[in-house]
Amino acid sequence: MKHIVIVGGVAGGASAAARLRRMDEKVSITLLERGPYISFANCGLPYHIGGEIIERDKLLVQTVEQFSKRFNVNVCVGHEVLSIDPEHHLVEVANGDEQYSLTYDKLLLSPGAQAILPNISGIDDPRVLVLRSLPDMDLIIARLRQIRPNVPIGVLGGGFIGLEVAEALRRLNLPVILIEAQSQVMSSLDPEMAVPVHQHLLEHGVELHLNRSLSRIHSLHDGLQLEYNNSQSVKVGMLICAVGVKAESQLAEEAGLELGINGTIKVNEYLQTSHSDIYAVGDAVQTYDWVLNHPVHLPLAGPANRQGRLAADNMLGHKRRFRGVQKTAICRVFDLSVGAVGVNEKTLKETDVDYQKVYIHSNHHAGYFPGASTIHLKLLYLKENGQILGAQATGKEGVDKRIDVLALALQARMNVYDLEELELCYAPPYGSAKDPLNQAGFVAANCLRGDDDMIYSEYVKDFVGQIVDIRDPEELKAGIISDSINIPLDSLRERASELDPTQAVLIYCQVGLRGHVASCMLRQLGFRVVNLAGGYCTYQDWVETLQEES
Amino acid sequence: MKHIVIVGGVAGGASAAARLRRMDEKVSITLLERGPYISFANCGLPYHIGGEIIERDKLLVQTVEQFSKRFNVNVCVGHEVLSIDPEHHLVEVANGDEQYSLTYDKLLLSPGAQAILPNISGIDDPRVLVLRSLPDMDLIIARLRQIRPNVPIGVLGGGFIGLEVAEALRRLNLPVILIEAQSQVMSSLDPEMAVPVHQHLLEHGVELHLNRSLSRIHSLHDGLQLEYNNSQSVKVGMLICAVGVKAESQLAEEAGLELGINGTIKVNEYLQTSHSDIYAVGDAVQTYDWVLNHPVHLPLAGPANRQGRLAADNMLGHKRRFRGVQKTAICRVFDLSVGAVGVNEKTLKETDVDYQKVYIHSNHHAGYFPGASTIHLKLLYLKENGQILGAQATGKEGVDKRIDVLALALQARMNVYDLEELELCYAPPYGSAKDPLNQAGFVAANCLRGDDDMIYSEYVKDFVGQIVDIRDPEELKAGIISDSINIPLDSLRERASELDPTQAVLIYCQVGLRGHVASCMLRQLGFRVVNLAGGYCTYQDWVETLQEES
Ligand SMILES: Cc1cc2nc3c(=O)[nH]c(=O)nc-3n(C[C@H](O)[C@H](O)[C@H](O)COP(=O)(O)OP(=O)(O)OC[C@H]3O[C@@H](n4cnc5c(N)ncnc54)[C@H](O)[C@@H]3O)c2cc1C
Ligand SMILES: Cc1cc2nc3c(=O)[nH]c(=O)nc-3n(C[C@H](O)[C@H](O)[C@H](O)COP(=O)(O)OP(=O)(O)OC[C@H]3O[C@@H](n4cnc5c(N)ncnc54)[C@H](O)[C@@H]3O)c2cc1C
Ligand SMILES: CC(C)(COP(=O)(O)OP(=O)(O)OC[C@H]1O[C@@H](n2cnc3c(N)ncnc32)[C@H](O)[C@@H]1OP(=O)(O)O)[C@@H](O)C(=O)NCCC(=O)NCCS
Ligand SMILES: CC(C)(COP(=O)(O)OP(=O)(O)OC[C@H]1O[C@@H](n2cnc3c(N)ncnc32)[C@H](O)[C@@H]1OP(=O)(O)O)[C@@H](O)C(=O)NCCC(=O)NCCS
Repeated sequence: MKHIVIVGGVAGGASAAARLRRMDEKVSITLLERGPYISFANCGLPYHIGGEIIERDKLLVQTVEQFSKRFNVNVCVGHEVLSIDPEHHLVEVANGDEQYSLTYDKLLLSPGAQAILPNISGIDDPRVLVLRSLPDMDLIIARLRQIRPNVPIGVLGGGFIGLEVAEALRRLNLPVILIEAQSQVMSSLDPEMAVPVHQHLLEHGVELHLNRSLSRIHSLHDGLQLEYNNSQSVKVGMLICAVGVKAESQLAEEAGLELGINGTIKVNEYLQTSHSDIYAVGDAVQTYDWVLNHPVHLPLAGPANRQGRLAADNMLGHKRRFRGVQKTAICRVFDLSVGAVGVNEKTLKETDVDYQKVYIHSNHHAGYFPGASTIHLKLLYLKENGQILGAQATGKEGVDKRIDVLALALQARMNVYDLEELELCYAPPYGSAKDPLNQAGFVAANCLRGDDDMIYSEYVKDFVGQIVDIRDPEELKAGIISDSINIPLDSLRERASELDPTQAVLIYCQVGLRGHVASCMLRQLGFRVVNLAGGYCTYQDWVETLQEES
Repeated sequence: MKHIVIVGGVAGGASAAARLRRMDEKVSITLLERGPYISFANCGLPYHIGGEIIERDKLLVQTVEQFSKRFNVNVCVGHEVLSIDPEHHLVEVANGDEQYSLTYDKLLLSPGAQAILPNISGIDDPRVLVLRSLPDMDLIIARLRQIRPNVPIGVLGGGFIGLEVAEALRRLNLPVILIEAQSQVMSSLDPEMAVPVHQHLLEHGVELHLNRSLSRIHSLHDGLQLEYNNSQSVKVGMLICAVGVKAESQLAEEAGLELGINGTIKVNEYLQTSHSDIYAVGDAVQTYDWVLNHPVHLPLAGPANRQGRLAADNMLGHKRRFRGVQKTAICRVFDLSVGAVGVNEKTLKETDVDYQKVYIHSNHHAGYFPGASTIHLKLLYLKENGQILGAQATGKEGVDKRIDVLALALQARMNVYDLEELELCYAPPYGSAKDPLNQAGFVAANCLRGDDDMIYSEYVKDFVGQIVDIRDPEELKAGIISDSINIPLDSLRERASELDPTQAVLIYCQVGLRGHVASCMLRQLGFRVVNLAGGYCTYQDWVETLQEES
């Protein structure tokens, strides 16, 4: 009888075991998990800390007992695989003080990743914690009970786990300092798109320390003194590190398996490692970003689950391809949803891809229906043919929907002309007859067809010509671009003669829509015109960005 | 100078006028609207009746003044086009008592549709009303103030407008009788998918009269006596008719333009009528259902808006194709969202298309995160290659997102194997690592690959063999399929010997997931097995459906 051994019993490992059993009632399956639990909801950990998921048991999607019984799998928790011998198809396992070896016909590695700890002095203080597993969570909760309520807690890292932890702590009414080495949180976003997230964090009482690298930690009797490399320092009660993860690839490496980028395990499209009887999935492996055609490490639960299912099929003799990833991701930050898919502009700038971008600030549903809130969307596409490259969005409602639709548009290799034609469901509580995604398609297609011409905020400072603010006078209180003159859109036609036809015109409004109307008008009246992409709204985010970067 | 005349100033007409002006500053544009308003939010009317949209002014997306000024369009409200003379490029217009004729170079018809009134005696009673325009709405609101609060109001027709009106009236705490000739509301749904909608309506105090055709209306001094063709009758204070719309095509017909199905105006893919200088868009025209390759009348705002934009371009000399429709639609019914896209099974049954279907009843987001609610999803696809044909969904949250993603999947001609690989955004508040749409893909792909075999609820009565309910004993209280035996999934492996291997086995659980696990297991133990599609949940809806149909 064929024997399959699985290392790691959570997203990738447990999914693979379940699928294996469904596809083959006879194969013998051993699941080795070094921790005390299998199938737990890693993604739920921050929400239990914050008290939103009240019962800890909810995090245990399957217990060892249920899982073994239902799927007839030999589940061994507390069993750590110490080494692999690919040649003899053996793994060496430790269970407490006991050690034994186990043979396999096929081996699946789904050992996940470990939280990275920066290599600085003081990092080994027991008040420096990470969040990866249930025991990690339990420890954080226990420590939170011990600390004094007025001492802030430091969260190191503004990625999605850092942000979720910061929110959880604020829910407990604890003071929080979020420390980030970059000038922005959520590195999947471009910097100007992160500005609303920063504002939202501040509004919710998170103290934001951007551009701060931690250089050392001093252990005090009542807390930690965090020293930044700009020689400032700050005192916290404890520090939760969320600066990213590192693939658990030591086992693989020691077994001579080929590694990929950032110490990931290298697998082919069938999720096979360099040894054909060893498969690997999940946070531990290198995967493939098909949008830019390059290897990538994407430690997320969706791919891990789907890879586990696929690897199971392949270990049973099928040949099913994993298609690669396009990096769809989302994070809730208090009341804000922050989502992204595909490539961002930061990354595109490092390539020679000829791209364009549009910004949309649209109501998430019909404006006349109560409760409409703004979605801020950035869309990137190929200049050559409009093929969609990536998108980012923030907003209180409807962000996940738009990112998911764009995820499909990417998967289907669609272009901006396809977005113009999107037939999405519309009733006032859900969207608009022209959905924000239709609008994004319209704007992009207008640029590509030459029906309008855009200027991006970052180039406004270099613009030579007349800057015309076409908003209504009362809108200017919120701020203007310097050296602009105000001619409200509805009087532009009659006042166009006030403009100098020999000079270029930069038009802007609040979001770009009225600017488009004005820009079309003036162009046909003989002016050279550009419309400010995303209007004053995007411009402000850029101004903020440049400040944060400097 | 080219002169373009537009008939109808709302979704299609106003969108076209705005786009025309953006694309051509010089062209002269006249917009003729017989009603008192342009650019109003038809779709918002029911919500103002129900008091959800409080200010009536919110429904006026653009006023005549704003619009004429911004877009330099000659907007004439209260001007009705009486006839078209295509040969002489003339329209005859009435403005009150005045009448005049107007020449055009290009003419755009966007006259919309009118509410259908059944041709029965008593229909002309002034207490029989329809809802199409702002004046219609004003009249309904005025009448509601006059009627006695305890007399129920009749709503005729269970389409989306009927349902929205019924909900609006319930919000005002008025008793409502919803009358529908078919055995189900929302004809875009298949009957079993409408069952949760019926339940929800009843829970919200709507009295549902299904299978009731209205045969005559008796005018009483204090209300209306509605007589059904089953000779029952019911008394209401007033009756709002929402039994569908009829294209406003009389003008076109009288002008000799070719008509399409159901009295719509026939247009080609460039939205040109049979007379090349006359274009038509919106509720008045026939469009094309590309999924089943047949002409269709789809009176919805999204297509009307997009067609208006496209027709504008084409009238200016471009040649941009309207790609046809796939019938994406959604309706809010109290707390329930009801959405559909593509073809339904009722329609497929009338074709020779070889299709399959799956049912999913999944949490809209991670089950361990508070607030998860069930999405009921039905997916239809080609048996030959898995190409998606259509989908329907109901649920309290996340329905619009799944329908929109499937709308894109349809638009991109994707198949169920593509759904298996969907990379949607996942964090606990938004979805699951295996999204309901992934699950739908898994289940469908399992069937197509022969990894599982399904039986549909409607065939259970014909099944010969053993029926095994694999739910846990406490789940059976909610009902069982008769003649089934109960062997809980987790003891099935050891108790399989209790089953007769010479007889087929029908497995069912609550939604189909555990049934899949059981069915895979038994099949490999040598049994002939089928798993009940959608489990007991779908089965119950079918039982209910058959009762309503009989
Ligand atoms: C706090 C937090 C929040 C998250 N939120 C999200 C989110 O919102 N969305 C999202 O997509 N993803 C999220 N993730 C990421 C997601 O949880 C992972 O992508 C996913 O769990 C990866 O699955 P895996 O099977 O590769 O690894 P894991 O789920 O980490 O499982 C690996 C298991 O292998 C075990 N193991 C390792 N080495 C050995 C060994 N030598 N012997 C035996 N056992 C071993 C480990 O103990 C571990 O239990 C989150 C992660 C965390 C920590
Ligand atoms: C109550 C209600 C709720 C709705 N809800 C939704 C929804 O949630 N989602 C959705 O997608 N759709 C919805 N719709 C449908 C949507 O409003 C229509 O699809 C859309 O308005 C059609 O646009 P149109 O330009 O073709 O016609 P209309 O918007 O109806 O405009 C046609 C205009 O032409 C004028 N006209 C007609 N004949 C003449 C003439 N001879 N001379 C001058 N003027 C003329 C009419 O007075 C009318 O104002 C709803 C409709 C109603 C009534
Ligand atoms: C709990 C766990 C073991 C479940 O694995 P699983 O059994 O593969 O997954 P599910 O319970 O979602 O079931 C999916 C199966 O049910 C089937 N299914 C789902 N709905 C169905 C329905 N209505 N009818 C028939 N079959 C259905 C699917 O086709 C799939 O089977 P397949 O893979 O053979 O095609 C695994 O997901 C896990 O460990 N999760 C927790 C860890 C984790 O993911 N962490 C990160 C996120 S917090
Ligand atoms: C109000 C109405 C006249 C507006 O028509 P419109 O000007 O074409 O539509 P919008 O205001 O949405 O503007 C869309 C335009 O702005 C552009 N735009 C949108 N956002 C933009 C941005 N951020 N930057 C630049 N341009 C932008 C679009 O590209 C599009 O221009 P295009 O058609 O030239 O490509 C019309 O929609 C209407 O009458 N609506 C009410 C009636 C109705 O639809 N009823 C049924 C539903 S309730």
